[in-house]
Parts: sequence; structure tokens; C-alpha cells
Amino acid sequence: MTDAYVVGSGIIDFGELYDQSFDDMLESAYLDLLEDVDHGIDPTADIDAAWYGTIDIANEGSSGSSVAHATGLFEKPITRVENACATGSDAFRNASQAVRADDCEVALVIGAEKMLDDTEGLIASAALERLWRGRGVTMPAYFGMRATRHMEEYGTTREQIAEVSVKNHENGTKYPHAHQQFECSVEDVENSPTVSYPLNLYDCCPVTDGACAVLIASEDRAREFTDDPIRHAGWGLSSDTFQRENDRALTNFPATRQASSRAYERAGIGPEDVDVAEVHDCFSITELVTYEDLGFCADGEGGRFVEEGYSHLDGETPVNPSGGLLSKGHPIGATGVAQIAEIYEQLRGEAGAIQVDDPSIGLQHNIGIGRNATGAVSCVNLLERP
Amino acid sequence: MTDAYVVGSGIIDFGELYDQSFDDMLESAYLDLLEDVDHGIDPTADIDAAWYGTIDIANEGSSGSSVAHATGLFEKPITRVENACATGSDAFRNASQAVRADDCEVALVIGAEKMLDDTEGLIASAALERLWRGRGVTMPAYFGMRATRHMEEYGTTREQIAEVSVKNHENGTKYPHAHQQFECSVEDVENSPTVSYPLNLYDCCPVTDGACAVLIASEDRAREFTDDPIRHAGWGLSSDTFQRENDRALTNFPATRQASSRAYERAGIGPEDVDVAEVHDCFSITELVTYEDLGFCADGEGGRFVEEGYSHLDGETPVNPSGGLLSKGHPIGATGVAQIAEIYEQLRGEAGAIQVDDPSIGLQHNIGIGRNATGAVSCVNLLERP
Repeated sequence: MTDAYVVGSGIIDFGELYDQSFDDMLESAYLDLLEDVDHGIDPTADIDAAWYGTIDIANEGSSGSSVAHATGLFEKPITRVENACATGSDAFRNASQAVRADDCEVALVIGAEKMLDDTEGLIASAALERLWRGRGVTMPAYFGMRATRHMEEYGTTREQIAEVSVKNHENGTKYPHAHQQFECSVEDVENSPTVSYPLNLYDCCPVTDGACAVLIASEDRAREFTDDPIRHAGWGLSSDTFQRENDRALTNFPATRQASSRAYERAGIGPEDVDVAEVHDCFSITELVTYEDLGFCADGEGGRFVEEGYSHLDGETPVNPSGGLLSKGHPIGATGVAQIAEIYEQLRGEAGAIQVDDPSIGLQHNIGIGRNATGAVSCVNLLERP
Repeated sequence: MTDAYVVGSGIIDFGELYDQSFDDMLESAYLDLLEDVDHGIDPTADIDAAWYGTIDIANEGSSGSSVAHATGLFEKPITRVENACATGSDAFRNASQAVRADDCEVALVIGAEKMLDDTEGLIASAALERLWRGRGVTMPAYFGMRATRHMEEYGTTREQIAEVSVKNHENGTKYPHAHQQFECSVEDVENSPTVSYPLNLYDCCPVTDGACAVLIASEDRAREFTDDPIRHAGWGLSSDTFQRENDRALTNFPATRQASSRAYERAGIGPEDVDVAEVHDCFSITELVTYEDLGFCADGEGGRFVEEGYSHLDGETPVNPSGGLLSKGHPIGATGVAQIAEIYEQLRGEAGAIQVDDPSIGLQHNIGIGRNATGAVSCVNLLERP
């Protein structure tokens, strides 16, 4: 069976894109991808199929076929995948699967979200509306509870949690596509307005529009597009409970543990082999907990991991060199695709000011809770420089 | 590479299911599937992953993880696929692909829709709201235009179009899970209230709640579950234009032609080899046109094909023995899965009163237009008794 390789990526500058339609964003990310392919591409002839990630929060264009007009890829199979905040990464997983199943040789993955046009407040309906939302369990409240529990159980400090935001905002100033490009100190984070204790404004990712695309090719075709393809080495997806009464652990996310252990197993590696990671920091605490869930450090050590610089750009395991969701933003359908695009650039040594030192294995991670869902989802993908 | 086999199916009675929640429907279809597996199944041990089809019209539970609570399949990878009216069949296609890619050995496909809880009128927003809906191009109007054009171009008669409804309603009375179980005559169809000329009420599928599930297994595992597995022999998905000004043909659906020719090619067969078909008759005219698009008859011959009985239960190519969407109903995410479940029963000789004579190859087909989409999608799957 063939392996699947990433052979190109395209992205638009994330931000408040009131001046762009949903189709504009898709088209721009797609055109940027076409230009990025080292040896060039004849899209109509070369691209066999597409997977499209969006939760369609703005009700602008669901269904795979919506992508056909924005890209001109008529007569192609295009599937829309939605999986909460893991939408983009699961679209990538399904596209890779199609290449590995030999259903197609070259697949486009494209993700987009217009978060600022969420006129119906759908983002607030994440988590089970009929049970939890009315009781105040919005996303900041949910992750706030995770934070206080981690502080109580492991002695994690408010400062350590803030260090995640400080690091990611510093990284984001070096990443040209990031939405909120400013540096902040621990004090700035602590003095920003409270959203849900202990999480303040700078502990929360912004509301951001964006789109991103990557191209996947089979082993036989990959070198047509680039001399430096990046192998999809491992993947894992897991669905877990989200209902409060079933929460088995408030200090970790079982779905991430399941998804990452499957990904490591497939790739035949362990967390110690990961050279760079783009993980789901919807809130500062999420990244801190994710260090532990991915096995980058022991349970309870997440606070120390960031405080002592292990996850910094020059640390042992740089996490979110792109600034993460905290700085770059979190246009849901685009988020996972953008993380993969960034890991692709890192492994090719083309990440510019945020390039980490000679990485050969990169990890991409999302965790999410569906609209009106009772379950949590996590998706992990591993990329490897062959 | 392994082939993928259908090894079980489960369905609930379609209808106006105000007494069931979304989760109730999912759970009931899933439990019916578990009971249907000939040799039994230990779901937690045996089922590796799931693909979930819903357009989530009732905003009751999007995201793959929503299925985990209804089925108890925690810690499993569950992906939601949405592709307009082809949602269920594309979920099946992606699940089969995962089995063929050896990402998993046993996959659940489950689809559901609560159409009657569509409080936001999302079904009316199919087709591009900002361009077409305000100009009256709702789905009945769109398919009505297709009908008048077919009548004008080929001399198709109003009676021939009505014959589709007459046939499907007769079939539906013999299918226990169908929503609207009544027979009607050509005169009844012609005398039912006009919806959009020439389509009357009985030319339109009802608004129906429902859920359905099928189980897919790899070649190695299939016979653990049944002595009579059914092979997924071919598949095709295509995305085409839907914008009026780009319509290249008002008398056929290019997406169906592309999807079916790909499916035939993969299976190494032609339309003449199809022994039974479940096709997308959202309106009577849709089935008539689909005969031509699938190659069951020549262009312009669709009217004669049904009038002369070729697509009847005892005809040469029985189409929609289950009553089709016209009688059974069209709970979008469940529709394609239910068609596959029915073809599975047919090929195993277990279709009861609607059993056709010793079929060995069955075809399943959907065509759809996304919510606020500018594209049309078609998905075709071919199943074969090995």
C-alpha cells in the first residue's frame, strides 16, 4: 500500500476578514497552494478529489460541492467533513486515507471558517445546549474548571498557565499569517479582563476568519510536485465523553491520549521523537494539559514544562511556533489544516523566523466539542521528513 | 488490498417521529443493526470506527462524537460526513475507503435526520440563498423546470412522470419501514395539489424523520459476521455546478453521469448488469431523469422506461423496490444508508415482499444540492453478491 505525502500548502492571512466572502477565502487559499507547489501543478488534470473541512458556522457554504465553484474543480469527488474543532485535521485524515486506499492519487484538503459572521451564535452552542449551556457551561467556563482543577491537584500556578499565552503571542509576532500579533507579559495576561476564572482575555484564542489548503499525493506521484515531500506517518482520532457527570478526569483529555497513542503506534515512534508540534491551544490551559496528554511530560508537569522553556521556540519540544490558536486565531475548519501546513513548512526547513532546529518529525493536534454534542473529539497527525 | 463488505444493516420505521429524540433514533437503528448481524457481534471489541452522516437540519447533534453517546462507542474514531442529499452514501464511501486503506477492519456507518424539527427552515435554504431562493428557485421549482424541459425536449408526458410516483407508492405499501404507505393512481397524482408545475404533491417526497445503520468489514473479517457478505464493488462521487447560468443540461444531471460511470468502471460492469437499484427520487421527475443518467435507458427514454414497466418490481431493472424517497421518505443523513441497507437485503434474498428475482448486482444513488451551495453532488455505490 502506498503512503501519503504532503506536497504543498497554501494559506491566507488570518484575521477579521469582513472584506472577503467565504468563497474569496477558499479561492485565495487554493491559489496560494497552487503557487506553492515546487514543480508546478495542472490542477484540473492533477487533482483527483478533495476533502473540505468547515463547521459552516456562518451558513455560507456547506457540502463538498460548495468548493467546486471556489476552486473550479468541477466533476471531482469533494466530501465535506465536520468534526467540531478537529474538522480540518479529520478532513486531512480522510483525504490521506483515500490516497492510501488508492481511491485517488492526488487529493486537496481545504478548510475555511468565517467565525465573525456567526450571526446565530453557534460557537456558543458548542457543548450540549439543552443540558449545559443554560447552566453556564460555555467553553471558557468548561476550560476554566479544567484550569482550577489542575491548579488544585498539581499545584500548577496562574503564572505557569499565563506562560503559554506569553510564549505563543511572542511566536505569533514572527508568523506573518497570525491574526493577533502582539507580545504580552505574564502580568499583561493576569491583568487582562476575566473571562471565566482563572482564564482572562489573553488566555483565550481570538475570533478569527481564515482558510488554508494542503495537497496530498501518493508515493508514486509525490515527487512530481516537489523534491521534498513530507510523509504522513501516523494518525489517530478518538471520540470521548464530554458530559460533566461522565468526566473521568478533569485534568486531562482521554480523547487526546487515545488519539496520540494510536498515532505514535502507527508511526512507530514515541512522544520523545517529536521535534515540533502544533497543538490545540484554544485556551492557555488547553496547551498546558496537552503537553501531558501527548506524553511530552509527566502528568502534573505541564506548568513546569512551559515555565522552564521546554516548549519554547528554542526548547527541546517547540510547541506552537506559529503562535498557536492564541495568536494565529481559530477559524475552526481551517485550524487543523493550517497546523499541518505549518508542520509541513517546518519539516522542509522553510518556516522562516519560526523555524525550529532541523526537525524530522512533527505533530499536529486538535481537540473539540461538537455543536450541541455530548462528546469530545481529538485528532492527531504525525508528519515525517523521509 | 482488501475489499470492503457489508455484513449487517439496521433501520427504524421512517415517519413523523415526534416521540423520539435524535439520540433515540440513532440508538434504535444501531441496536437493530447489532441484532441483524447473523453471527452476532461484540460491538465494543469488534467495531473499530464509525462514519456518521447527517446534515443536522434540526441542530440536534453534529460532530462525530455525537454518535458516541447514542451507541456507547466511546474511544473510537467517529467522523461526520455531510454532503447534502448524498450525505449517507458519502459517509458509506468514506467508511469503505477506511477499510480498504486498512485503517480499520470493521466500520459502522450510521445516518440520521430529524426533518420535522427543521425549525430554521434549512431545507428551504438548499440552493444558494443569496442568489436563488429569493427569486423562487426552491427545490420543487428547480425540479419542476427540469420536468417541463424534459417534456418539451423529449415529449415526455405528465402521465409518464406520474407513473414513477404510482410505482413507488405501490412498492412502499410492501416495505414495512416506509413512511407513507398508500397506493395512488396516475389520476390521484394529477389531481393532488400543485406544488410547482408540473409537480404535484404526490410527485414530491414527504418530510420524514429516520435513521439507519450498516456495518462494513474487511475481507478477512466479513465471514466472522455472516456467511453471506455483500461486496462493495464500485463507487463514484462527483461535484458539479448548480448555478442556473452554468447549467449545461436541464434534462440530465452531469454529476450522476460522472459518478455512475466511475462506479461502473471500478466494478468492471455496465448499467445492463444492474439487477436492482435504489435511486434518488426526491421528485418523480428525478427518478425518470436518473434512468437516463445511470444508463438504464437512452436519453429521452425515461418516460417510456417507467411506463412500459422496465423499472417495476417485476421489470428488467427494478428501481426503488422499497418505495424510494417518494414513499419511504427522505431523512437526509439516513437516506443513502437506508438505500444501501435495502440493496444489501435484496442481494441476500431477504427483502420479503419487495424481493426482486435473484439479483447479484445492486446500485445505490443520490443526488443533492447543498445548503446555500452553488454545486450539485452525486454519489453512486455498487454492491455485488460475491
